[in-house]
Amino acid sequence: MIVIHLNAFLFACGHHRAAWRHPQSTVERLGDITYWEELARIAERGKLDAIFFADGHTPQNVADGPRWFFEPLTLLAALSRATTHIGLISTVSSTFFTPFHAARMLASLDHMSHGRIGWNVVTSMFDAEARNHGFEAMPDHDWRYARAEEFIAATLALWDSWADDAVLNDRAGAWAMPERVVPVNHRGEHFSVDGPLTVPRMPQGHPVLFQAGASEQGRDLAARRAEAIYAVAWDLEVAQDYRRDILRRVREASRSDAVPVMPGLVTYVASTEDEARAKQRELDELLPAATSLRQLASFIGQDCSDWDLDAPVPDLPPLETFTGPKGRYATILRIIESERPTLRGLLGRLAAGGGHCTMVGTPASIADRMEHWVRNGGADGFNLMPPSLPGSLEDFVDHVVPELQRRGLFRREYESATLRGHLGLTRPECRRG
Amino acid sequence: MIVIHLNAFLFACGHHRAAWRHPQSTVERLGDITYWEELARIAERGKLDAIFFADGHTPQNVADGPRWFFEPLTLLAALSRATTHIGLISTVSSTFFTPFHAARMLASLDHMSHGRIGWNVVTSMFDAEARNHGFEAMPDHDWRYARAEEFIAATLALWDSWADDAVLNDRAGAWAMPERVVPVNHRGEHFSVDGPLTVPRMPQGHPVLFQAGASEQGRDLAARRAEAIYAVAWDLEVAQDYRRDILRRVREASRSDAVPVMPGLVTYVASTEDEARAKQRELDELLPAATSLRQLASFIGQDCSDWDLDAPVPDLPPLETFTGPKGRYATILRIIESERPTLRGLLGRLAAGGGHCTMVGTPASIADRMEHWVRNGGADGFNLMPPSLPGSLEDFVDHVVPELQRRGLFRREYESATLRGHLGLTRPECRRG
Repeated sequence: MIVIHLNAFLFACGHHRAAWRHPQSTVERLGDITYWEELARIAERGKLDAIFFADGHTPQNVADGPRWFFEPLTLLAALSRATTHIGLISTVSSTFFTPFHAARMLASLDHMSHGRIGWNVVTSMFDAEARNHGFEAMPDHDWRYARAEEFIAATLALWDSWADDAVLNDRAGAWAMPERVVPVNHRGEHFSVDGPLTVPRMPQGHPVLFQAGASEQGRDLAARRAEAIYAVAWDLEVAQDYRRDILRRVREASRSDAVPVMPGLVTYVASTEDEARAKQRELDELLPAATSLRQLASFIGQDCSDWDLDAPVPDLPPLETFTGPKGRYATILRIIESERPTLRGLLGRLAAGGGHCTMVGTPASIADRMEHWVRNGGADGFNLMPPSLPGSLEDFVDHVVPELQRRGLFRREYESATLRGHLGLTRPECRRG
Repeated sequence: MIVIHLNAFLFACGHHRAAWRHPQSTVERLGDITYWEELARIAERGKLDAIFFADGHTPQNVADGPRWFFEPLTLLAALSRATTHIGLISTVSSTFFTPFHAARMLASLDHMSHGRIGWNVVTSMFDAEARNHGFEAMPDHDWRYARAEEFIAATLALWDSWADDAVLNDRAGAWAMPERVVPVNHRGEHFSVDGPLTVPRMPQGHPVLFQAGASEQGRDLAARRAEAIYAVAWDLEVAQDYRRDILRRVREASRSDAVPVMPGLVTYVASTEDEARAKQRELDELLPAATSLRQLASFIGQDCSDWDLDAPVPDLPPLETFTGPKGRYATILRIIESERPTLRGLLGRLAAGGGHCTMVGTPASIADRMEHWVRNGGADGFNLMPPSLPGSLEDFVDHVVPELQRRGLFRREYESATLRGHLGLTRPECRRG
């Protein structure tokens, strides 16, 4: 039997960059914790595996729209008290944090939530973020991945510094056994940390490690360390290629565990295809054309300010001749080739989820496509990226989830109370040095 | 009219080192978030100004008893959702954190709690903690205080990086005004941070700064920066000296604000003096004598393992001749001189609150003494250190608080919804560079 895993990736007013401009948007509530509690409860009503937060360390261009508000670890702590079963995944940057802080906060959260925490390891991207953490610019890719590797090793060691049975609560004797709470004495290129942690061993053993490996080093890191993987796949073929590659690397790393691969997925759901397309168009039309065209110009390396918004996008030069960043350019070429969109349609696609897959349609047609991806090796689940919140998340939970449940592809009730349980992952042994 | 400020300093099973050994102790619940929620609600029922958490980065001797469990920032996030009015104060170490992380998490919490957050700045103490954060040993006192000074400056600058009116939520225009969200470009000896923060300006302007300055540098830092001050005072005379000194330094720093000074206070409350003393003795008798005697030996620089536990403590050599750390030794001399305790009584005093004041008695007699301290320049309030939890906190809230309220010394209802409001502090202006 196929079981689909579903995360809700919650971001500001939604993943569509113009979502906050909608008259009914939640933009006034971004600093209101009850807004995030409501979203978490909608996801939990849908029995999703987890909610997930990205993170950034610079506000970027605040005129264009909101990106960040609450810091994700404090946010997840609050949300752990508004929910009972759903997993709670936070991004923590291995470039900007240090292992002791990350290990301690995530451990605290895993206790608080009774075993529902996941950690999405990222190495961060922008110079402006690096300059908030003492760097002059973002350290290069190799350095960041070497640090991430060491960061994970040190963090796992700290999480293993308390044996499962270390705490005795023996009122006439010892609170905990000193010989079961041991230093880790990590000495590496990037970190020096003695341990032990201040927090006893966690309900899940340790939080579930997520990673989104894209580059060669990222894929290798994910294959060696990640217990679940986020992916970026515009279409099934890309998804299959990525999943095949990453699972090969997992096997080569001598791991026998099943590592769920979850591509991002933007959905516009309605009771007819036309209505679903209208929902998408409504958001696309809120995009300020000038800003979007300037951004597209930077992606494709040519001015497009006088192109007709409602005409098909003109043909672009082939990938081989393009000298800018190729990944996004390749995605743009694929969108144009497969969908022949108008210029406004292309801007809308790029404004919601970037290179991630978008599915527009009825609950049945979207469930068909999701099932097709899962049955054909493209995914073990999806990282849902609702274009507008709470609407797109509610549409998915109330209409697509029941359709997946009817097909036996998704749980009707939680069968576990931990994120590991939802994902079918085993509790790791405590490995003492 | 005199108004007393009251914080509840929540620590493990209570501040008495043997509290966890009591048959009814909460030691099994330290990792259960509902235990901390219950404590926070008891304090809120008593209309206290705030609850307060210390922090440490090493578990110390885990056989002797529990010290830490939840990390305090994630803990406060959860507690902000279980309470509505009470202030929430976390310790954050300026030696182990960096300004961007601290500013961002505390800002997130201030939004989440609608303006109830306080930050107790500490420079940390132990080599074992330093070795969890990349140091070989704890950096020296001067270095730590120079770093703390710069840490506070950079953090305040980040908190001012968003103007109060920066966010517009203008759906047809800008989310926020870029010219009102500005870099801080801090370049110092210890930190380099560009800003701006990712979090808009907070309900309180910024969290309330607490400090517990003891050394010369600590007192100067507190006088320049703290908005409220924790103190250590064994008796009224020490409290008066400290408060007089710190308020002189506040004036010398050209500050006109009233800075509440709050000494720590351990209380044993019961309906008769005898019952109160019996409560204290019950905890003292749970102390493992051998461990306590070893500790006392280290404090006084001589072996005391064969002294009689139930006889008065023998006279000790005068302070001038003692070559170890003088502060604690002086406190021990004062306890012996003023109370002529048995050895067991002395061990008990040292095991609950260390050099802080202890009051044992009826609600009226304790309220008398608190009032005396406040009317005679010893304190603007107290940082309550319940020796056992939840019992000692409940005793105080249910019996001493009503007595203080009857005397018009303490609020009957919250008159504000922010920590600044409770403490009578003004909301700071946003100072843009």
